[in-house]
Formats: sequence, structure tokens, C-alpha cells
Amino acid sequence: MKLLVTGGAGYVGSVNAARLIESGHEVVVLDDLSTGHADAVPDGARFVRGDIDDVIGTVLAEGFDGVLHFAAKSLVGESMVDPAKYWQGNVVTSLRLLDAMREHGTPRLVFSSTAATYGEPEEVPISETAPTRPTNTYGASKLAIDHAITSYAAAHGLAAVSLRYFNVAGAHGSIGERHAVETHLIPLVLQVALGQREQIQIFGEDWPTEDGTCVRDYIHVTDLADAHLLALEHATAGEHRIYNLGNGTGFSVKQVIDTCREVTGHAIPAAIAPRRAGDPAVLVASSERARTELGWKPERADLTGIVRDAWEFTRSRQEA
Amino acid sequence: MKLLVTGGAGYVGSVNAARLIESGHEVVVLDDLSTGHADAVPDGARFVRGDIDDVIGTVLAEGFDGVLHFAAKSLVGESMVDPAKYWQGNVVTSLRLLDAMREHGTPRLVFSSTAATYGEPEEVPISETAPTRPTNTYGASKLAIDHAITSYAAAHGLAAVSLRYFNVAGAHGSIGERHAVETHLIPLVLQVALGQREQIQIFGEDWPTEDGTCVRDYIHVTDLADAHLLALEHATAGEHRIYNLGNGTGFSVKQVIDTCREVTGHAIPAAIAPRRAGDPAVLVASSERARTELGWKPERADLTGIVRDAWEFTRSRQEA
Repeated sequence: MKLLVTGGAGYVGSVNAARLIESGHEVVVLDDLSTGHADAVPDGARFVRGDIDDVIGTVLAEGFDGVLHFAAKSLVGESMVDPAKYWQGNVVTSLRLLDAMREHGTPRLVFSSTAATYGEPEEVPISETAPTRPTNTYGASKLAIDHAITSYAAAHGLAAVSLRYFNVAGAHGSIGERHAVETHLIPLVLQVALGQREQIQIFGEDWPTEDGTCVRDYIHVTDLADAHLLALEHATAGEHRIYNLGNGTGFSVKQVIDTCREVTGHAIPAAIAPRRAGDPAVLVASSERARTELGWKPERADLTGIVRDAWEFTRSRQEA
Repeated sequence: MKLLVTGGAGYVGSVNAARLIESGHEVVVLDDLSTGHADAVPDGARFVRGDIDDVIGTVLAEGFDGVLHFAAKSLVGESMVDPAKYWQGNVVTSLRLLDAMREHGTPRLVFSSTAATYGEPEEVPISETAPTRPTNTYGASKLAIDHAITSYAAAHGLAAVSLRYFNVAGAHGSIGERHAVETHLIPLVLQVALGQREQIQIFGEDWPTEDGTCVRDYIHVTDLADAHLLALEHATAGEHRIYNLGNGTGFSVKQVIDTCREVTGHAIPAAIAPRRAGDPAVLVASSERARTELGWKPERADLTGIVRDAWEFTRSRQEA
């Protein structure tokens, strides 16, 4: 298939672009490089630098079999202080994409949604039938896009799949996580291992979990890319399917730090800080539906492997 | 207060504008007349004809204490076949309003949300904590606006209230319901009474309700306007409060038709048709929170009174 990958110079987008190329697809990456890196666009992909808002019509006019839509504003904290940036950059821009796809007859869409659409869960693991009560603007903006996709699928025959996941981690070959503002646990802990940060903060050790620290879901970025490939194959005209992607049981903050200590051989000092407002104790997705309907299962669910890949990538960047 | 009423030439918007003027407020109506009627703008209101997208900045620049936002695309059926019209006309336009309010320091917003944000209820009556799973694009677009308002209230100190209701009915003085495409039960039944339609269709009489027909919530438009006045008074900077407005128990389709027969003295032929896909048996809102926090209660909850006011308005239009 000839596929457009928006945000394909970002971490998740570039790994997906690479995986699509490995699977024999023709890939065009569209990215404005506002947060992505031109050197992350994989070999074999054609790169178009530009804003969706400006160029999507021109790009799609050449004819595509599908779009994988990763381009987004995705900093939760920023979304709370500058909501307009998220409503415009995520929702309005995605509406423009949907209209352009309709205009140019692009039949398939795989959308990078988020488990943040659910908000604080009533039950864990979180299934796709859980209520959607986003607690931040990032999650609310992605939920609005999901609803828009549902309506375009029903009205215009779009074949669409949304994938909802929490924390993506690890690296795929030479492509790993590089954020200007790092907010993710594993990269932060590895920065401590490298001596770039003094210590890692643990926000509360009195949570109702086995070791008292918060439990979160981590997916290896390669497993995630495999889910996108399967989603593309299973997308059905006129339907919008939504799948949660999770690793099953989740890992606690202490487990993550201990695994990073093992993998890196560094002491990694940690300090206990107070709980943060709005942090649920456990956020783990059920991926039962993805297993059953897409035949997906995480092949790299082992935390040590995820951390090892992240660490190798981090060190290689360090040496480069 | 000096207040802007968007959509103030429509049914609900014009009644609200009239009620605000009766309560001593200064009112400017903004309406593009795409579905509204210039002659519905009440005496005492200044009328600006225009699109929010084009003129909202200019209008708000003169300084307002608040906005009551009624302007919307609101045909459920149309929203399913032309979703772009609803994502643009409701969501994108409301984002423009929010940005303009922020730019010009307009402190208060009362938004006309809808019980359609909830979709098919798990429990009736529907409370504000019910999951929001809209089953049509109209409801989804209003839900996205509610989420956007929440984010602007938290980030920028907006004082905001959303009111969610099902079926507004009745008339306020000389202002009543006039839709180019009539989809509401009471006006349709009254059209049969007037001989403009041959019969009224009842979609299913085998529902699990007392008389087998669907039960819906009807609020007198004057009661609704009173809730908007109270919302305006109770709006608090930095908070976005959401209230359902309902009449308590709801009325069945057969009850509505029977009441219309009594009030009009016409036979009003009815025919049983199959159930419509997506129609829930009972849709009734709990307005407990509005009663407790706003001190609102419907003073005109009696169905006969609602129908009588609607009938007087309909006949007066007929004679005019």
C-alpha cells in the first residue's frame, strides 16, 4: 500500500514508518519538525516537510491507500495551560485531514489515540467500553478526534481504526525516544543513569499497590508498530474500530527504576516526593479486543528488554 | 449585565434573549439567520446579523459581561450524513468564540449543551455523572465543545455553565417554535391538528414502558430560560459546571398525542410505525443538581400547559 505517515519524524511515527517500509509498503512522511527530527525519518521513506493545515490537500491529491495519523501536540501539562494549542493543533488539524481524505478518496485511516481519553478508571484493566472522562485537555482533544472519525466513517465509508495506549517505550533499531521536554519515566530514569539528572522523583509510595508506587502500562514501540500494521489490514469501510493496547499487568515505578539499575549498572538515586494531584494508582489497559479481533499480542512485553533497547538507544545518542 | 446571545433569532435563543431583557439585562443578539428569524429577535435587543466566524472579535471588542451561546447546527439526522457541517459549524465555530472571549476578557459563558451528549443511558433518570457516549454527530460535537469549555475555564479563569436538556417545548409570549425542517414531536402533532399533515407516526408501541411508546423529557421554554438566568448568576471564575435540565418523569408519545387532542379539540390521527434504530425507550434527565445548586425548578412542567402555549403560538402564526 502507498501510505502517508503524519508526524513520521517523531518517536512513534518514525518507528511506524520504518516498520511499514520493512513490511513492503511505500511510505511518505509528512512532518512539520515542530517536535520531530528530520534524521528520524527512516531510509526508504519520502519526506515532505510541512503543516497538515497547509499542504494536506496537495499531498493527498497524488493518491494514497491510507493515512497513519501520528502528528499531534502531546504534552499533558502544556495542554492544561494552553488548551487552544491542543484544540487547534489536534482537533481542527485532524478535521482538515479528514476533509482532505474525503475529498481525495483516501480509504483508510489509523489514528494514534490515547488511553488518556478514559481519564481516571473505574475499573482496571481498562476496556474499550469504559466511560471516556478525560482529565486533561490532551486526552479530551484526542477523544474529540475519535468522535469525528466515527462520524466520517459512518457518513462517508472511511475505514478507520483508533489505537489507544499509555506509555510507549524502548527503541526500534536506531530509532528511539527523543523529546525536547522529557516527561516519560523510562527516559527520565536513564538520564539519571547518564548523570544528566541528579535523581529520579517517585511521586508517592503510599498508593494501594503491591510496592506502594503507581503502576503504569508500557508497550515496546515495535509491538506498537505491529499493532498499527494489523489495524491497517483489518480496517473495514464504514467502520471505526477502537482498540486499547496494553502489556497486561503493568509495572510499578519502583519496578521500572530497579530494572533500569540492573540494565545500566548505575545506582540511580531516587527520592520520594508527595503524590501528584490527578495521578491514578493504576493505569493498565486491557488489550483483549486487540488480541481477539486483530490477532495482536505484545512480543516484547518483558520490561528488561524494553529498558535494554531504550538504554542502547540512549547510549548510542550519547556517543554520537 | 451586558450580554451577547448567539443564535438569538432561533427558538430557544430568542426566548432567552426576551427573558434576559425582562430581567433588566442589556442584550445584543448575534445570528446569521441561517435557520433563525429576524422577527423573533425580541424588542429591546440590538441585533447584529453575521457569522460568529467572521464578526465575533469585532462584536466582543465593545465589551460584554457574558455570552449565552445558542448558535448551532442542531439537526440530528443531518449530522449523521454531513458530519463536517457539525464539526465545523459547532466545534470550530465555538473554539473561535472561546478564543475571542479570552482575547477580549469576556468573563462568563452559558452554553446550550444537550442531553444527546450522553447517548443511550445505562440508567434513567440521567445524572451529570453518567458516561457520555453520544450516538450521533450532533451530540458528539456538543460534547467536544463542553470539553473545550472545561479546558478554557481551568486554564484561563472563564466562568462557565453548560445546560443539557432534551426537548424544549411551549412558547414564551409571542415567541414559539418555527423550524424549517420540523423534527420535534409536539410541533409535528400540532401540524396534524391544523390539517398540515395527515397523521402522526408513532415509532413502536412495544417498548418496555407503561403504554408501550417511548418516553421523553419536555421542558417549557420559559423554564429553560429561567435556568439560563440562574446559570449566569451562579457562574464562577475558573469553573465549568454542567447541569441537566429535566421535568422529572417524562411523557410518553401517546400521552403527548392525547394531550394535544384535548388541548386542540382535533382528532389527530396516529399510525403505528416500526421502531426506529437508535431510539432508546426512555430518555429522562435528572435535574437534582440544578435544583440543589442553582435553585432551579420547572414551574411549567405540566404537559397540558406546555401544549396549550405551543398551540396558541401555532394558531397565532396560522392566522398571521
